[in-house]
Amino acid sequence: MPSLASTFARWGTPPTPVTVSAEAREFLTDTLGEPNPRPSVPLAEVVTPESRLTAAQLSALTEIVTDSGVSVTSSDRLAHAAGCSLTDYLKQRSGDASNPPDAVVRPASHEQVRELLSFCSNHGISVVPYGGGTSVTGGVSRADTKALAVAIGFDRMAQMLSIDEVSMTVTVQPGITGPVLERILATRGLTWGHLPQSWERATIGGYIATRSAGQASTGYGRSDEMVEWLRVATPMGELELGRAPKSAAGPDLRQLFIGSEGAFGVITEITLRIRHLPAITKYEGLMFPDYASGVAAFRELAQARLTADVMRLSDADETHATLAMSGPKGRQGDLFGKYLDVRKVSGGCMSILGWETQSRIALTARRRAAWSILKRHGAATLGSSVGQSWKKHRFDGPYLRDELLDRGYVVETLETATHWTTIDQLRSAVKNALVGALETETGHPYVMSHVSHVYETGGSLYFTVLVPAAADPIAQWASAKQAATDAIVANAGTVTHHHAVGRDHAAWLEDEIGIEGMRILRAVKAAVDPEQVMNPGVLLPMA
Amino acid sequence: MPSLASTFARWGTPPTPVTVSAEAREFLTDTLGEPNPRPSVPLAEVVTPESRLTAAQLSALTEIVTDSGVSVTSSDRLAHAAGCSLTDYLKQRSGDASNPPDAVVRPASHEQVRELLSFCSNHGISVVPYGGGTSVTGGVSRADTKALAVAIGFDRMAQMLSIDEVSMTVTVQPGITGPVLERILATRGLTWGHLPQSWERATIGGYIATRSAGQASTGYGRSDEMVEWLRVATPMGELELGRAPKSAAGPDLRQLFIGSEGAFGVITEITLRIRHLPAITKYEGLMFPDYASGVAAFRELAQARLTADVMRLSDADETHATLAMSGPKGRQGDLFGKYLDVRKVSGGCMSILGWETQSRIALTARRRAAWSILKRHGAATLGSSVGQSWKKHRFDGPYLRDELLDRGYVVETLETATHWTTIDQLRSAVKNALVGALETETGHPYVMSHVSHVYETGGSLYFTVLVPAAADPIAQWASAKQAATDAIVANAGTVTHHHAVGRDHAAWLEDEIGIEGMRILRAVKAAVDPEQVMNPGVLLPMA
Repeated sequence: MPSLASTFARWGTPPTPVTVSAEAREFLTDTLGEPNPRPSVPLAEVVTPESRLTAAQLSALTEIVTDSGVSVTSSDRLAHAAGCSLTDYLKQRSGDASNPPDAVVRPASHEQVRELLSFCSNHGISVVPYGGGTSVTGGVSRADTKALAVAIGFDRMAQMLSIDEVSMTVTVQPGITGPVLERILATRGLTWGHLPQSWERATIGGYIATRSAGQASTGYGRSDEMVEWLRVATPMGELELGRAPKSAAGPDLRQLFIGSEGAFGVITEITLRIRHLPAITKYEGLMFPDYASGVAAFRELAQARLTADVMRLSDADETHATLAMSGPKGRQGDLFGKYLDVRKVSGGCMSILGWETQSRIALTARRRAAWSILKRHGAATLGSSVGQSWKKHRFDGPYLRDELLDRGYVVETLETATHWTTIDQLRSAVKNALVGALETETGHPYVMSHVSHVYETGGSLYFTVLVPAAADPIAQWASAKQAATDAIVANAGTVTHHHAVGRDHAAWLEDEIGIEGMRILRAVKAAVDPEQVMNPGVLLPMA
Repeated sequence: MPSLASTFARWGTPPTPVTVSAEAREFLTDTLGEPNPRPSVPLAEVVTPESRLTAAQLSALTEIVTDSGVSVTSSDRLAHAAGCSLTDYLKQRSGDASNPPDAVVRPASHEQVRELLSFCSNHGISVVPYGGGTSVTGGVSRADTKALAVAIGFDRMAQMLSIDEVSMTVTVQPGITGPVLERILATRGLTWGHLPQSWERATIGGYIATRSAGQASTGYGRSDEMVEWLRVATPMGELELGRAPKSAAGPDLRQLFIGSEGAFGVITEITLRIRHLPAITKYEGLMFPDYASGVAAFRELAQARLTADVMRLSDADETHATLAMSGPKGRQGDLFGKYLDVRKVSGGCMSILGWETQSRIALTARRRAAWSILKRHGAATLGSSVGQSWKKHRFDGPYLRDELLDRGYVVETLETATHWTTIDQLRSAVKNALVGALETETGHPYVMSHVSHVYETGGSLYFTVLVPAAADPIAQWASAKQAATDAIVANAGTVTHHHAVGRDHAAWLEDEIGIEGMRILRAVKAAVDPEQVMNPGVLLPMA
């Protein structure tokens, strides 16, 4: 169960201390100026509206999920009121209780979910499936204040159900998190390998419902590519989809529920493809002379199918910020600068490659093949320590955001993907849109970008924005997000590569799939959720 | 345009002579007995019903697609009346004119398809999109005799539209065939790499509409995995789907139209991922001591991601038949037998591995890694000549079937897929079902099987059945198909791995996707094709 402390507008307390370093603070002050601190409104001052469920409704819900399955406490409801987008955080930090659900309901089985959805459908109660609550696109942030609503918590459906070591699959309930699943799999030398930045809190059901991609998805595959089988409960019935690894038996209906974000039903069981834990891993840093060389090298690696398992390419701004905030300083910094000069990559673009292999022989063979391409594009190695450092800090981002928000910065990320032919145009357009929307006479944004995943035909782009908070930071970010997403759809980008549609991107989905595509989604919704109770406003804008 | 000679119940005349060898005839006679020849009813004796379209309807159709786009000749209509399943062939060979379409309409553009579908929807005229006509599951064999019907021919929409050598994609119209596309791509050193046995005649649109897999799909990917973008016309509107290589923008609606078999609309443009032509290829034969070793080796290769691009593993019966019909004879045969004895693989299972690589170094590296696994499972090499021979004859099957049908044999194939855990059980069950259904006091079937594609979590099984034709061979095969498909769904198999649902598997689809899955398909159909004119009876059984 997410605790209030960790979810009320904070990612929480890190397992090992994470804090914005002195160098980073200096870089930010120099670059963006020193904003005024913006502490959260103390939780004690937040007023949570009372649950509007009647005693009869609560009693009926309790009958479905038993006593321990229904909670109407303020803290529980607040903890399930929003996700982790900047807007969610800013609202909650301002003391806005954000229209919490009237109850948190925790079913313990597929059958209880079936009954719960049927009951809510019959009684016009909205249902928000709330996994780890890590959505950054408003996927769990209910906007409609009129309808009664419950959030589904998955704490009682968080088991690993079975492992098949012959077919290399694992079957899980949706509420299990990555750390728990990986711990179980590791005892048998297995791994799922899905590591997005939300890993410490997100649930497997949430990954699948949102088509999540993780840091190692270039190697292990995206979450949506690793689903072998799904069990789904809808208000109208249930489905089991995925008879075989591949099939030609008509449309692939798994692909309707994967990415359905709770709008069609609840994923109650999932079979995932797994792999053997790597025996030998290597994470390394490298520097390209410029961004174009890096993109060309990444494209060539992808098209030759010689990719690393983790592949990241920072643009010059992200590289500059990374080196300023955590690069070598003093005499070491001078030596590093000379090394870059000698290798002709000063002012270039940093990259991280992560290799996960079964043997040193395999690692050597893969790296040798890749480096023959990398060298042709002018890459210089920065060694393993840079790669190890990235790996060590891979989950730090959300903790740092907590501190930066306290300090008065606005910090947010967004992402897209496109084909190689349009990737430069898309990056420039989004960056310009963000800078244009956030630039003021007094406040300057810092916008960084990296290629986060590569495919044979294209790649994804991830953007990080830092800017001193304006008087109304929610409006400040809304205009930037609008400008960026308009730029994405105008420049051949998908509205989201791995953050899902949620409520924040819903207005742009028609641009992506067309009027007829929206009509098909509504037809499916009408078939499985005729009373429109499932996560209203997600995917399909509310009427 | 398919010519009548090549499509009326015959695959046609091979580019180079293909005939059942004396050894093969001897093997078949020894194993199955000598059936009575069953020549086709001469085409001149076949009576084709008149087109029932009115002059006004024909004139309206002509207005949409121009003069050259509408044909009501008996030969054209007969050539678009059925596909290439055994049942289609047997019906046509018996002189059954098979309920031909009332016209063959050949639109020249997406816009003409849009208008055509809208017109047919408004006038209750069924539409059968007819690509190469190579369906082996009744995908283009209309059963309903009441409704007026037109077949769409794609001869005027068979262009390559553009190639993007940066993103490595090609955009085509649906009517282009593999040989034409590959010829164009080869001039730039590129390939799509999709080579099913229907390659000489099937269209790209047909592949995508049926989720076709080809002989090299283990390496190049299935047709459904190589679709980047689709344009679709439906009776109600149009869609363009696939903004980026990967996206998290909700359900993947491409996966509703891929595999929709013409039931939802017509695919009018397709962007496919392509690759560089291989510089070095090697096809090799090998022999495993037994089937279990072969399956274990294939599984290990797949899970270590060390697969060849083509991977086939014949069971003992298929191996026996292959060697009897085309293996070495006489003194060479004795030497071959001794070699198998020494390598302890006599009576074992034959396999073909095909490697397509960019360099000899890459070929050596891949083969070395694979052979270290193959050797552990007892595989003995049979050298390149066996592999080359398989490659040379890879498209012979349909021509041989023509001759075997003439000679009075029933010849048909079917296929499925499942996870590694259930693959043995599935193979036995299907084989037993086929033998059980076809065994009579006088006629014995010969049932062979091979693994045709491998995935990390499972593989596909392809079955070939040979049996002397009974008095009513259509009924004979119907009972065998029923038994085999019942065995497939009862043993964790998908009803089809790459032949699609068509009309022949439609009755089993509900078993695969459930009542709710069927309800979703009907909801989508109602949204895009409310008058139910698109390829009625395919995917969704007719009411």
